Amino acid sequence: MENAFGSILILSGPSGAGKSSLIKAAGDKIGDNYFSISTTTRPPREGEKNGVDYYFVSKEEFEADIRAGEFLEYAQVHGNYYGTSLKPVRKALEEGKLVIFDIDVQGHAIARERMGDLITSVFVTTPSLKELERRLRNRGTDDEEIIQKRIQNALIEIEYISAYDFLIVNDDFDKALDAFIAVAKAARLKKGRKQALRFIESWRGA
Amino acid sequence: MENAFGSILILSGPSGAGKSSLIKAAGDKIGDNYFSISTTTRPPREGEKNGVDYYFVSKEEFEADIRAGEFLEYAQVHGNYYGTSLKPVRKALEEGKLVIFDIDVQGHAIARERMGDLITSVFVTTPSLKELERRLRNRGTDDEEIIQKRIQNALIEIEYISAYDFLIVNDDFDKALDAFIAVAKAARLKKGRKQALRFIESWRGA
Repeated sequence: MENAFGSILILSGPSGAGKSSLIKAAGDKIGDNYFSISTTTRPPREGEKNGVDYYFVSKEEFEADIRAGEFLEYAQVHGNYYGTSLKPVRKALEEGKLVIFDIDVQGHAIARERMGDLITSVFVTTPSLKELERRLRNRGTDDEEIIQKRIQNALIEIEYISAYDFLIVNDDFDKALDAFIAVAKAARLKKGRKQALRFIESWRGA
Repeated sequence: MENAFGSILILSGPSGAGKSSLIKAAGDKIGDNYFSISTTTRPPREGEKNGVDYYFVSKEEFEADIRAGEFLEYAQVHGNYYGTSLKPVRKALEEGKLVIFDIDVQGHAIARERMGDLITSVFVTTPSLKELERRLRNRGTDDEEIIQKRIQNALIEIEYISAYDFLIVNDDFDKALDAFIAVAKAARLKKGRKQALRFIESWRGA
C-alpha cells in the first residue's frame, strides 16, 4: 500500500458475538475512521444505498478491478460478485484514517499477507458456544438452518484465535466496549514499514 | 512460560523520551500490573530497598539462576552482575498481572524470542532528535559525556521502531498518556498460545 498514513483494525469472530454493536457503540470515540463496506454487482434492493450498504458497481468494473488486483477477497454467489475492494481502503489510509474491517478468519489471513504491517487484529467472541447459541436464537432473525450453519462456522473460526493480536470475550458489553476502544486507539499507533522509515528520517533530521 | 495467564507489555525508547513518567502517571488505570525490576549482586546503596530499586541477591544465587536459564538478559559491570530475572515475571503472570518491562531494543528482541506470544510492545520517543537533546539538557542530571552517549544510543535505537507493535510520539504528555493507557489495556487482551488453547477448550465445552 503506497502512501499509507492510516492504519487498519480487523475484527473477526462468530456472527452473534457483537462485532457490529461494538463498532457502532465506539462511534467517534476512536477518532476518524472508515468502516470498510463490500462491493457487489447485484442490483440494490429497496432502500439500500450506494456507499452505505454496499458499493454497487457493474460486472465490467468489478472484473477490471479483479484483474488489477484491487480486491482483498471476492466471491461469486448466484451469478453476482461480492468483494472487499482496496480502492476506498487506500483512499481512507491516505487520509490518515483508521480503516475497520469486519471480515472472517480467511479474509484476515489474506489481509495479513498483503498489508500485515498496518494491521492490528482482534477476535471477538461470546464466553461460550452455549451463550453464542442462546444469543443467535434470542435475536430471532435467523431460521434453524442458518443458526446451525453459524454455529458450525463458529466452531471453525474459534480455532484461529492465536492468529489475532487480541481477544475480546464479550460477556459484559460495557467492559467489552472499553476493551474495544483501547484496541482501536492502539491500532492508530501502528506504524507500517514505510511510515516508520519516514518517521525515522524526519526524527533524525528535524 | 508455563501456566501464564497474564501478559507482557514492553516499552523501549531513548532515555529522555518519558517512559518512566508514562508508567508512573498511568498508575492503576491500567489494572493490576507488575513493573519488572532488575536483579543485581552489588550491595544496596544508602536508602535502596530490596524489591523496589533492585532485587539484591548473592553472586551464588545469580550464577545458579544464569545456569537455570532464569535470566532474560544479564551483564557484568565492575565485577557485579545486573540482569532481568524471569522468576518474579513468571509469578506475576501466574497471578494474571500485566508485566511491564522498560528494556532496550536488544532486550525486546530476546524477550520476543522467548515469550513472543505474550508480548505487546511499544516504542516511545520524542518528536525529534533535537527535542530529545533539549530534554536531556533540561533535566540537568547528566554531564555532557553521558548526554552524548544517550544521543548515540538513541540514533541506534530509533532504527528498531518497525520491530515494535506501536509507536508513541511523546509530544503532548496528556495525549501520550492516553495512548499509553490504550496500549496497556490492549496488552491485557493478548492471549498466549497456551491461554488461547485453554480458552478454546472451555469455549466449546462449557
